[in-house]
Amino acid sequence: MEFSLQEIAEALGGEFRGEAGLKLKGISSLEEAQEGDISLITRRSNLPQAEKSRASAFIVAEDIEIKKPIIRVKDIRLAMIRAINLFNPPSRSVLGIHPTCNIGQRVKIGREVTLGAHTVVGDEVEIGDNVFIYPQVHLGDGAKIGSGTIIYPQVTIYERVTIGEEVIIHSGTVIGSDGFGFVSVEGEHRKIPQVGKVAIEDKVEIGSNVSIDRATLGTTRIGSGTKIDNLVQIGHNVTIGKNVIIVAQVGISGSVTIGDNTIIAGQVGFADHLTIGANSIIGAKSGVLSNLPPGSSVVGIPARPHMEQMRIYASLGRLPEIVKDMKDLKKRVRKLEGEK
Amino acid sequence: MEFSLQEIAEALGGEFRGEAGLKLKGISSLEEAQEGDISLITRRSNLPQAEKSRASAFIVAEDIEIKKPIIRVKDIRLAMIRAINLFNPPSRSVLGIHPTCNIGQRVKIGREVTLGAHTVVGDEVEIGDNVFIYPQVHLGDGAKIGSGTIIYPQVTIYERVTIGEEVIIHSGTVIGSDGFGFVSVEGEHRKIPQVGKVAIEDKVEIGSNVSIDRATLGTTRIGSGTKIDNLVQIGHNVTIGKNVIIVAQVGISGSVTIGDNTIIAGQVGFADHLTIGANSIIGAKSGVLSNLPPGSSVVGIPARPHMEQMRIYASLGRLPEIVKDMKDLKKRVRKLEGEK
Amino acid sequence: MEFSLQEIAEALGGEFRGEAGLKLKGISSLEEAQEGDISLITRRSNLPQAEKSRASAFIVAEDIEIKKPIIRVKDIRLAMIRAINLFNPPSRSVLGIHPTCNIGQRVKIGREVTLGAHTVVGDEVEIGDNVFIYPQVHLGDGAKIGSGTIIYPQVTIYERVTIGEEVIIHSGTVIGSDGFGFVSVEGEHRKIPQVGKVAIEDKVEIGSNVSIDRATLGTTRIGSGTKIDNLVQIGHNVTIGKNVIIVAQVGISGSVTIGDNTIIAGQVGFADHLTIGANSIIGAKSGVLSNLPPGSSVVGIPARPHMEQMRIYASLGRLPEIVKDMKDLKKRVRKLEGEK
Repeated sequence: MEFSLQEIAEALGGEFRGEAGLKLKGISSLEEAQEGDISLITRRSNLPQAEKSRASAFIVAEDIEIKKPIIRVKDIRLAMIRAINLFNPPSRSVLGIHPTCNIGQRVKIGREVTLGAHTVVGDEVEIGDNVFIYPQVHLGDGAKIGSGTIIYPQVTIYERVTIGEEVIIHSGTVIGSDGFGFVSVEGEHRKIPQVGKVAIEDKVEIGSNVSIDRATLGTTRIGSGTKIDNLVQIGHNVTIGKNVIIVAQVGISGSVTIGDNTIIAGQVGFADHLTIGANSIIGAKSGVLSNLPPGSSVVGIPARPHMEQMRIYASLGRLPEIVKDMKDLKKRVRKLEGEK
Repeated sequence: MEFSLQEIAEALGGEFRGEAGLKLKGISSLEEAQEGDISLITRRSNLPQAEKSRASAFIVAEDIEIKKPIIRVKDIRLAMIRAINLFNPPSRSVLGIHPTCNIGQRVKIGREVTLGAHTVVGDEVEIGDNVFIYPQVHLGDGAKIGSGTIIYPQVTIYERVTIGEEVIIHSGTVIGSDGFGFVSVEGEHRKIPQVGKVAIEDKVEIGSNVSIDRATLGTTRIGSGTKIDNLVQIGHNVTIGKNVIIVAQVGISGSVTIGDNTIIAGQVGFADHLTIGANSIIGAKSGVLSNLPPGSSVVGIPARPHMEQMRIYASLGRLPEIVKDMKDLKKRVRKLEGEK
Repeated sequence: MEFSLQEIAEALGGEFRGEAGLKLKGISSLEEAQEGDISLITRRSNLPQAEKSRASAFIVAEDIEIKKPIIRVKDIRLAMIRAINLFNPPSRSVLGIHPTCNIGQRVKIGREVTLGAHTVVGDEVEIGDNVFIYPQVHLGDGAKIGSGTIIYPQVTIYERVTIGEEVIIHSGTVIGSDGFGFVSVEGEHRKIPQVGKVAIEDKVEIGSNVSIDRATLGTTRIGSGTKIDNLVQIGHNVTIGKNVIIVAQVGISGSVTIGDNTIIAGQVGFADHLTIGANSIIGAKSGVLSNLPPGSSVVGIPARPHMEQMRIYASLGRLPEIVKDMKDLKKRVRKLEGEK
């Protein structure tokens, strides 16, 4: 696959500078680009790498200048999506059902479906059209997989979990394991049976090694368009809104509700039963211990409003000195008082 | 399956108010309950949802009132266990050994055992009676699985790991991987061979995507009745006592000992070689850096006694103001001293 | 296998005290040692356990004394490696290719290779000599596995990932899943295609349930000799240097660069696009928010130089008292000022 500078510029809706017919045969990172590749300069701090790069042309944001053929675009990140897709058109051939796949009773399978080697499909599972399930996946009894969904190897979907359309689930992820619920009776922890469900709505993407527990009763729900990074924990009866971003290693305790469009940075934890308003931003490593109104921006352990926490962080370095000053000042004031 | 209000009240040891013969056909969450369902009101804050619920009756704690048929119980959480089990009696048919299961040499398998599709059983493995092993599980050479244990899909048990009776292990969990032990020799990290074992005692439950390392020498041990949530890390040579609760994403470093009945909240970390006394409570996100006597209650990074830490958290918001006040006060005291 | 005290001392390059011909038949932990075993006393704090141990002899560091046959060594941890290897010589028979293994088109497999049951090997995969791949592993299309590498059960290697020589990868680990990259367009998160690679260099060891994402463009790289503990997150386009130590549950955000020989303790998190200089030490649970020069030693959230943070931690306990003192002092100074 090969495109000219002008063709790429047109595909990206950008303006090019250089020879219109310059042939480009791939898109690559600045470091790995070879002659004939196009690359991206997404931030000014990449300029030194770009100067050294062997790329023959660059896609650049409006304020970036370099002495090589360029395509200038308004939104460098949208252009990145288009340019990568141009050279790497998404293609996954339909492979059908592998003979080593185990399929249960009363299973419904749509058209153009792939089921990989050693994948196990339980009884009464329903799989929509154009679903691609890699090898070694487990679909428990009664699971439902919506059309266009991709499930990577070694994913486990427990019984009666519902997955929407155009969902992507990466390897090692487990959806529908028992919620962590016990009642302590004379020091012994008795299990609360976990008989609820999980519903993953449309266009959700879930990273690798994520754990999503089923509800005790009711449903653990991940809203449409939400994106979940790797190694995230989502407890029983959690409700995540639409278009939420959850970065790696976040832990969401049982019965928490997260509003739409919220962004949760890495390694954050939430106490159970909290309600987080829509459009909130939770800074990395925060410990959220109380409900938050919509549009909150918090960070820290315990989480506080972002500006307040920044002031605390800035002051903390002074604390050892203040301890000393306080001791000294108390002595001096006592002396002044004695001199009256 | 259908029960009358009176029958359910008797099963739960509670008192009912309403028509004794009212037929109830399922138990459900407040949100998802349909007419004919019974639901639970576990806390006063659920009352608004309960008022809107379509449930035909409610199981309620002693201090909760609502204008619909109710069953009043002393322990709402114990009642929850009984009520869920009444409508969802635990049942798992014995399925025998699937033909795609690979079984090694000199394996001992008890009665009424299920081994799922594509499960691999190494040499000299011993499996007790009534064990249910889902598809795609791996049991390494010499592993021992006690009676009544349930192992969900895609679990990996390494060689010579011992699992007790009535243990539950969720998907993606790995038990017996090498401990993280290296000796640095001239900048190169040489591996300390990890030839010890792991012993999981009876009635332990382990969530999904948990990592439990084998001991270097000796045994990594999880005491009976202990419950471990998802994505927990347990290092080599760790000893966990009995009936310990370990919430999601906790990390327990090598050679740590945790006393019986301790509760460890989410995302806590422990430095290595620590001893935590029995009946301790470790607050969420704590970093524990020193030994703790029995009955400790600590929180924070580094972990401090709970009350002390709460006072620090409350004071932190004042810190930026104190920095300013201190500067101001020093100036004023200097002035006062000059005026003597 | 049985060795005399003298033979073991010679193997370890240590000096023995006791009967040269004393036969020892195994190495064990202090707690589990039986008569006839040798054990190790690695630190003085183990002496009480050693006094109670049934071991017949001990390997001890230079400054440790006990009234039983001993072998005194200069480096107790190196001696541990040698002694464990003496009694447990590493041995893994070549088992060949299991008949239930699925192998794609145009695959190259070296000599003395093991491929376990239900393992799936994609098209155009290349596997070096003496590679041992356990059952239920997934190797995506175009993956390359270097000679002498060991891959434990249920590992997933995505397409085009390159693994070096003598690498060890533990169960549940996922290498090559999509990086977490989205562009928000009118509230919807559009996926940036992740078409880059992952390269794991020689002699890397990776624990269980680790997640390593592929690069958007370019390569996510783990340098040779680096050791990664369990449940670690490594984002897209990360570059880890050589001989780095990464303890459990660390999270490394996209495009971070970690210098050679750095040590990262448990549960640390890094903001994206950071550069951490070589030979740095990052304390447990730190949140690193800015670039660090080589040889840095930092800890805390946000991470600060180690000594500075220790002083802050020590002062924090005084903070509630300082809040009170400040209030009191302000009143007294105001009074003094009024009395002038």
